[in-house]
Amino acid sequence: MNWGQCAQDRLSEIAKCSVDETGVTRFPFTPEHKAALSVIRSWMTQAGLKVHMDAAGTLIGRREGPLGAPTFLIGSHQDSVKNGGRYDGIMGVVLGCLALEKLAANGVELPFSVEVLAFADEEGVRFPTALMGPRALAGTFDPAVLAMKDNDGVSLRRALADFGGDPDGVEALARDPSTTLGYLEIHIEQGPVLQAADAALGVVTGICGIERNTVTFTGDTGHAGTVPMDSRRDALVAASDFISAIHNAALKITNLRATVGALSLHPNVANAIPRNVELTLEIRALDDTVRDNFARLAWSAGDRISGLRRVEFTMERTYEQPAVPCDSKMVDDLEAAIATIGQTATRLPSGATHDASAMADLCPTAMLFVRCKDGLSHKPEEFATDDDMGAAIQAISSFLGSGLKASR
Amino acid sequence: MNWGQCAQDRLSEIAKCSVDETGVTRFPFTPEHKAALSVIRSWMTQAGLKVHMDAAGTLIGRREGPLGAPTFLIGSHQDSVKNGGRYDGIMGVVLGCLALEKLAANGVELPFSVEVLAFADEEGVRFPTALMGPRALAGTFDPAVLAMKDNDGVSLRRALADFGGDPDGVEALARDPSTTLGYLEIHIEQGPVLQAADAALGVVTGICGIERNTVTFTGDTGHAGTVPMDSRRDALVAASDFISAIHNAALKITNLRATVGALSLHPNVANAIPRNVELTLEIRALDDTVRDNFARLAWSAGDRISGLRRVEFTMERTYEQPAVPCDSKMVDDLEAAIATIGQTATRLPSGATHDASAMADLCPTAMLFVRCKDGLSHKPEEFATDDDMGAAIQAISSFLGSGLKASR
Repeated sequence: MNWGQCAQDRLSEIAKCSVDETGVTRFPFTPEHKAALSVIRSWMTQAGLKVHMDAAGTLIGRREGPLGAPTFLIGSHQDSVKNGGRYDGIMGVVLGCLALEKLAANGVELPFSVEVLAFADEEGVRFPTALMGPRALAGTFDPAVLAMKDNDGVSLRRALADFGGDPDGVEALARDPSTTLGYLEIHIEQGPVLQAADAALGVVTGICGIERNTVTFTGDTGHAGTVPMDSRRDALVAASDFISAIHNAALKITNLRATVGALSLHPNVANAIPRNVELTLEIRALDDTVRDNFARLAWSAGDRISGLRRVEFTMERTYEQPAVPCDSKMVDDLEAAIATIGQTATRLPSGATHDASAMADLCPTAMLFVRCKDGLSHKPEEFATDDDMGAAIQAISSFLGSGLKASR
Repeated sequence: MNWGQCAQDRLSEIAKCSVDETGVTRFPFTPEHKAALSVIRSWMTQAGLKVHMDAAGTLIGRREGPLGAPTFLIGSHQDSVKNGGRYDGIMGVVLGCLALEKLAANGVELPFSVEVLAFADEEGVRFPTALMGPRALAGTFDPAVLAMKDNDGVSLRRALADFGGDPDGVEALARDPSTTLGYLEIHIEQGPVLQAADAALGVVTGICGIERNTVTFTGDTGHAGTVPMDSRRDALVAASDFISAIHNAALKITNLRATVGALSLHPNVANAIPRNVELTLEIRALDDTVRDNFARLAWSAGDRISGLRRVEFTMERTYEQPAVPCDSKMVDDLEAAIATIGQTATRLPSGATHDASAMADLCPTAMLFVRCKDGLSHKPEEFATDDDMGAAIQAISSFLGSGLKASR
């Protein structure tokens, strides 16, 4: 059995559950979601799992362990962004199912139960919320989000109910931490680190904390011909000083990313000095203190630059999400499992958020990253090889088969 | 007679010839233009001038000199930008009329004829062309522009004909350089230099040449969380390096202005690395060689930065207009005239284009700038004081009364 090729075939098959043929567009609680669940159900059944959909729309396949044994969870999400790729999210479900199918084929018994979870909505594209499934399990679900509506005015409550879920039953899904052994998420890297390191697999050390800031510089506009250079209070020149300084400072800090991704300029015409620039500064770091220190450094840089360029400066934090470290024991175990298949794991942070960040409120959590071509994700060109996915299936089987080490 | 106060009153009066009451909106060949010409005609008549409108819609008031004597021209434009100020353009017409009225009141005879010209269209807001009036006189008018249309689909030919002009007679307006003594334009500075120098009046040394360039930086986009800093090819970081470098370099060069006024960014979202930045680089200088050298310096800076930041760089000149030096003899004479009224003139370049740049193809040309409050122009807040305008009237009278020096 070529497990990697089987994974590739399954991903091609389920990619057809899409609104159109440009990559994959599969939003939660839609006909495409329903079609995908039918396919996933067949994979789960083939792995010998008992299948049901929970109140939050999460499809769950369960392999029963010894009576009274705790449960280990493997999961990821079924949904995609608009015209996304065929690996993001769903690959974790495919590989989880195949790892259990492989263990069953080899007659391996496990001293615990295992569930594979296909969460409904991680991307948050349809509704202005996400992660309902893992939050329900972790007991952190806020029922207020059920009132949120999509662009067509359909509430999450209505969409879930029409899909066969039970909006009023979501809160009751909370699992007991004492019987939950851990959560493993397998996901494509969505970045270029593993390809650069020539490694098929990566073990995630943690999910970066994120903050977004709105930064403004405000000076004076004026005629580009009549105002001498030394009389100017050019907001764009100050913003440019700031953007370069932020990037250069971030280059020197490990496991930190700082991005000015959006910028708007007023008046934004060729022959007028820019009066105002508003930009976003997003900072991600594995360590919240490192991130917070960087935000202070950014503020200091903006303050210094605004003085030199004689413009006004403001910086306001508009969003913040703390970092989620992965469980160090599971990280070590995953690394050891990868070693048993003759590969070397690369340790790396996850700059993106995942279902795992919500599951970490329930139990010890880890993530296995699979190398993706050229770091491309959220695009039709997203790709992982048969071999890399095959290695992941082997590594997960080994990880589970080792009984999650004797210490647990 | 308080000439400055009279100028102020006249400007308040003609400001009413506007589409609305937010500043002045007076486009060429409109009912507002027609109303304004009626007012200007009364000023010209009061100065003892014979008035007619030429084929291009320029209102001309003529004071006849000795038989066979050459003609000296004083002019500016009647039109405004949308919601502009009450001084830009029209002030030159008001002050020209009042200077001649003052000379007549004082019984001063001049050894040449003088004409005051109120050009129809300098701002180029209604049609995608401008300066028809002065180009006609200079013999540089291109009849092809008559086919250009405004936003309502009305051609310049039609608008001019309906206004009482003669589209087919415009080319025949070309004056004989041998009988044209010179051209003087009086204009508000539209910049902060005279205010900073505590001077009412400035003598323009020349009208800056202008070029516009489209500059692009192109790298790779990617997820702001997953792509490590040292793997990025961030187009905005490169553009920022460029903008700061250009500004810093321009600060060191006399009589040069370099402005990045417009910028667009793709994809322009908070959590994606910018892939592409397109920006405008406008360069203005009194010396075309200085401007050209600066453009080369900008190209070198962009090329160097694109190498360091590992992005692509292009820079394309999309527009170029050479500098127009003012006549050095007239500049000296104007400065001397200002000295006779007990003031010190500031010499400065004009960063903006004026009717004078077209008139320079016909005859020796000079410009007198009047201080404006806080450098504001093209806005309802545009302002010049009675005293400063009074000083300008005195200076022009003195300049004309001196017979433009014996050397002419």
